Amino acid sequence: MSTKPSKTAITPTRAEDYPEWYQQVIRAADLAENSPVRGCMVIKPWGYALWENIQQALDAKFKATGHQNAYFPLFIPKSFIEKEAQHVEGFAKECAVVTHSRLEADADGKLVPAGELEEPLIVRPTSETIIGEMFSRWVQSYRDLPLLINQWANVVRWELRTRLFLRTAEFLWQEGHTVHATQKDAMEETLRMLDIYADFAENYMAMPVIKGRKTAHERFPGAEETFCIEAMMQDHKALQAGTSHYLGQNFARSSNIRFQNEQGELQYAHTTSWGVSTRLIGGMIMTHADDDGMVVPPRLAPQHAVILPIYRDDAARAEVLAYCKSLQAELAAATFHGLPVRVTLDDRDMPGGAKGWQWIKRGVPLRIEVGPRDIASGSVFVARRDTGEKKSQPRGEFVATVAAQLQAIQDNLLARARAFRDTNTRVIESKDEFYAYFTPKNKEKPEIHGGFALAHWNGSSAIEEQVRADLSVTIRCIPLDGDLTPGTCIFSGEPSHQRVIFAKAY
Amino acid sequence: MSTKPSKTAITPTRAEDYPEWYQQVIRAADLAENSPVRGCMVIKPWGYALWENIQQALDAKFKATGHQNAYFPLFIPKSFIEKEAQHVEGFAKECAVVTHSRLEADADGKLVPAGELEEPLIVRPTSETIIGEMFSRWVQSYRDLPLLINQWANVVRWELRTRLFLRTAEFLWQEGHTVHATQKDAMEETLRMLDIYADFAENYMAMPVIKGRKTAHERFPGAEETFCIEAMMQDHKALQAGTSHYLGQNFARSSNIRFQNEQGELQYAHTTSWGVSTRLIGGMIMTHADDDGMVVPPRLAPQHAVILPIYRDDAARAEVLAYCKSLQAELAAATFHGLPVRVTLDDRDMPGGAKGWQWIKRGVPLRIEVGPRDIASGSVFVARRDTGEKKSQPRGEFVATVAAQLQAIQDNLLARARAFRDTNTRVIESKDEFYAYFTPKNKEKPEIHGGFALAHWNGSSAIEEQVRADLSVTIRCIPLDGDLTPGTCIFSGEPSHQRVIFAKAY
Repeated sequence: MSTKPSKTAITPTRAEDYPEWYQQVIRAADLAENSPVRGCMVIKPWGYALWENIQQALDAKFKATGHQNAYFPLFIPKSFIEKEAQHVEGFAKECAVVTHSRLEADADGKLVPAGELEEPLIVRPTSETIIGEMFSRWVQSYRDLPLLINQWANVVRWELRTRLFLRTAEFLWQEGHTVHATQKDAMEETLRMLDIYADFAENYMAMPVIKGRKTAHERFPGAEETFCIEAMMQDHKALQAGTSHYLGQNFARSSNIRFQNEQGELQYAHTTSWGVSTRLIGGMIMTHADDDGMVVPPRLAPQHAVILPIYRDDAARAEVLAYCKSLQAELAAATFHGLPVRVTLDDRDMPGGAKGWQWIKRGVPLRIEVGPRDIASGSVFVARRDTGEKKSQPRGEFVATVAAQLQAIQDNLLARARAFRDTNTRVIESKDEFYAYFTPKNKEKPEIHGGFALAHWNGSSAIEEQVRADLSVTIRCIPLDGDLTPGTCIFSGEPSHQRVIFAKAY
Repeated sequence: MSTKPSKTAITPTRAEDYPEWYQQVIRAADLAENSPVRGCMVIKPWGYALWENIQQALDAKFKATGHQNAYFPLFIPKSFIEKEAQHVEGFAKECAVVTHSRLEADADGKLVPAGELEEPLIVRPTSETIIGEMFSRWVQSYRDLPLLINQWANVVRWELRTRLFLRTAEFLWQEGHTVHATQKDAMEETLRMLDIYADFAENYMAMPVIKGRKTAHERFPGAEETFCIEAMMQDHKALQAGTSHYLGQNFARSSNIRFQNEQGELQYAHTTSWGVSTRLIGGMIMTHADDDGMVVPPRLAPQHAVILPIYRDDAARAEVLAYCKSLQAELAAATFHGLPVRVTLDDRDMPGGAKGWQWIKRGVPLRIEVGPRDIASGSVFVARRDTGEKKSQPRGEFVATVAAQLQAIQDNLLARARAFRDTNTRVIESKDEFYAYFTPKNKEKPEIHGGFALAHWNGSSAIEEQVRADLSVTIRCIPLDGDLTPGTCIFSGEPSHQRVIFAKAY
C-alpha cells in the first residue's frame, strides 16, 4: 500500500474543481450522501461518528458552564412563529409546513393528505418562539435566573440550493437558549458561548477562527447583536462556523418572559441563543482535506489509528494477526486527552493497497502496517496522514509516544490552517485594490482567488449592499480582537472605527 | 426536612386515582410537561438527563455488538411509505403530512401555506422505508453483510389520546436497522437485541420484563415476527417496553435490497428493526415511583446523591458548606459501575424542609444531610429514597460504601418490582376465572385490579378479538421462557402450545 499512485486519490483536485473536489472527498471518505428527499442528507457512520465526537466535547463544555439539556417540540404553531416580526420575516420564506394529520384513500384509491389541521405547524427552523413560550411559564422570579438550557435537535430550513453538510434542508445542531435578569448578564453569556465555540474550533477541530460581531445586515432575525466565529476554507471563502446571539428583550416581549426582581417589580428578561451544527463537519473537510481525501483532526477522529496486517500466506497470517491484536490492546490502554486511544484492526480479506487507500481517504491520523519483517525487528511501520511521512519505529517507543504523535498531528493541522489563512488575508487600503483582490483573473473558469480582506468601512449598509452586488463579497464580521485602531473607509473616505473582514462566503 | 407530613407528597395517591397520580409525579419531579403543540411534550432537564443516561448505556451495548450510528432524513416521501402494503396501512392513519415549503401573506396580509410540494412528505413515524432505500444502494455483495446500523432520532405519530412519555405525538427513540444474508442470521440478530433490551430493563431500569413473541394481530406492520419485552406497571397493566422485529424479506423486496451471494447469485436480503423510546421513562415512573413522587434507579439517576447542608446562622454556614464540599469531592472520586458517583450539593437559600422534599419528589437515591452536630461527630445523616430508611453513618464508612449502598437500592428496586409482578400474575385455568380476574368490582369507580393472566389459548385471532372487545384485555406476548408445556385453551377447549400472557395494556 505504500506505493502512491502517480495521480491523486481524489479527482478532480482542489485546484481543478474545488466544489466537485468537496463532493468527491465526502464520497471517498464515506461521510454522507444525498437522499431521495430533496435537500436532506444521510449521514453515514464515519461522518456521524465525527458528529458524536463533536457533541461529546461540546456537551461537556456546556455542562461545565452550568447548562442543562432539555427537549422541545419539533413543531411550532404558525401563530408562535408570527410573534416576533423580524423572526417570521427571516424564516417564513423557507420552511416545511405540516397541514394534515393523515393520509387517506381518495375515490381512485390514491392516498392523499387528510385531516386538515386547524392551524398549520412549521417544522422548527430554530426554536426561540416555542422555547420562549415554555420559558415564560418557568420564569417567575429573579431566583429562577439565569435559566441555562441547551437542546440537541434536528431543524429544517427549506433551502433551494443545498450542499452536503454546508447547507441542507434538514440538519443536526445544538441550540442554547438562556434567560437572564440583566443585559450585562445576557451579554456575558453570549460572549462566553462564543469563546467556547472558538476554543472548540481551534483546539478540537484545529480550525482557526476569527471572533467578531455581525453587521446589522447579517444579524439573526430578531437579535440585537449576533456574534460569530469565521473560518477560512481552502478556496479562500469564509465559513460562518457558529453564532451566538444577544436577543435583548425582543423575544422576552413577544413570548412574555417576565420575572419579579428583588424589589418585587415585574420586568422583561434578557435572552440569548447560540448554535453550531453539522455544518462544522463541512468546515473540517474544507480546512484539512487534501487531494487524497479527508484528513481528520485527532481529537475528533472516530479512529485515531488503524492497524493494517500485511502477510502473504496463512502461516504468516496467524502470527501477524496475533501481533496486531496485542499491539491494538496496548494502544487502546494509552490515553489521548483523557480518553482511550481509539484503534481499529482492519483484518478484512482484501488487497492491502486498496485497504490502505480507504483509510487514507477517510483521513485516519495514523496508519500502522505490520508484516513479518516488522515483527522480526520488533517494530511497526507508521504513516502520518497529515504530512504523509512514513517511518519504522520500535514498537515500544511507538506505544509510549502515540498520544504525543497524535498531538503533533493536531498541532500541525492547526498551524498549517493558520498559516494558510494568514497567507490569504490581506490588509487593503483602497477600493481599487479591494475590487482587484476579489476579481478572478479568468472569468470563464474562475480560479481560487481572494481571501480575507481587512479594510476600513464607514458602517454604511449601502456600501455593504454595493459590494455584495458587485463582487458577492460580504462583511463576515467586525473582529473583536486584533487591530482595532480607527482609520478611513476605503469606499467613502469617511471615518471608520476599525478594520472589518470582507470575504466571499458559504 | 426529616419531618414527613401526615399526608403524602403526591395528591392523589396511586390508590385514589392512578392516572392522575402519574401526571402529578411527573409534575412534582419536574420530568416533563405538555406543550402548546397538541400531543407534543417538553422534556425538562431532570427527565432529559434520564434519557441521556438511557442513551449512553444502550449506545455502548449497541456498539459492543458491532452496530454503528448513522442519521437518515426526517421526511419520508409518500411514495416510499406506500411501498409496503401493511406498513402504510399501519402508519398512514396518523401521521404529520408536510405539504408546503413556505408561508406567504395572502390578500389580507395573513400568512398561509404556499409553495405546495409535488409530493407530500410524511414526518417519519419509523424509518424502514427510507433506510431501506439507502440500504439498497449500500448493499451489493455478501461481503457488505451484515449491515448493522442504529439511529437516535425523533419520530411522530399523530396519536389522538396522548399521555406524557407513554404515548405522545412526537417522541425520541432509537431504531436499529440491520441487513443479513440469511433468515438464521437475521433471527439471531432480532433475538440478540431483544436480550439486550431485557438486560437493560432489568439491570439498569430495575424493571423486570417478560420476553415474548407477539401474536399475528399485534405484530409491527410489515414484520414476519415481532418480539417484545413486557413489564407490569403498578396499576397491574402491561407496558410494552421494547420491540425487535424480524422483517423477513418484506422490506428487502419493497426496497429492493439485494446482494450477490458467494455463488454469484442475486438474492433478497433479510432485515430486522428494533427500538425503544422515551416511553421507557414512563415505565420507570410507573414501576418505581410512590405516593411521595419519583424513585430513580441508581444506575440511571441524573444524580446519585444530594448533599443538603443544614445550618441556622452564617457562622455555621461557612463551616457546614466547607465540610459538604469536601464530602462531595470524596464521593465524586468514588465509582459506581465504572462511572464517577454523581453527587450534587444543594446550597440554595431556601427552607430545608421544602428543599428536602424537592429531592424526594425527584427520586434521588440518597439524601445526605450535614449539620454542625454531624460535623462534630464526623458523621453524615443518610436517607434512602426507596425504603425511606434514615441513619447516621460515620463519614469515612459512608464514602467507602457509597457504591455498595447504591447497588443495594438498585437491587431492592428490582426485587420489589419482581415481587409485585409475581404477586399480580395468576395462572388461570377457566374462562370464568379469567373474566372475573379482569372485571373490576366497582364499575362506577374501577379500582386497580387484574394483572398478568397466564392462560392456555388455541391461537385463534377471533378469541383474541372477543377478549379485547369484552374486557380490553390483549395477549401481551407468547413467552419465550418459563412454563412452555402444552395444555387446553380455556376459551375453546382446543389444544394449546403453551400458556400466553393476557393483560390490559398501555
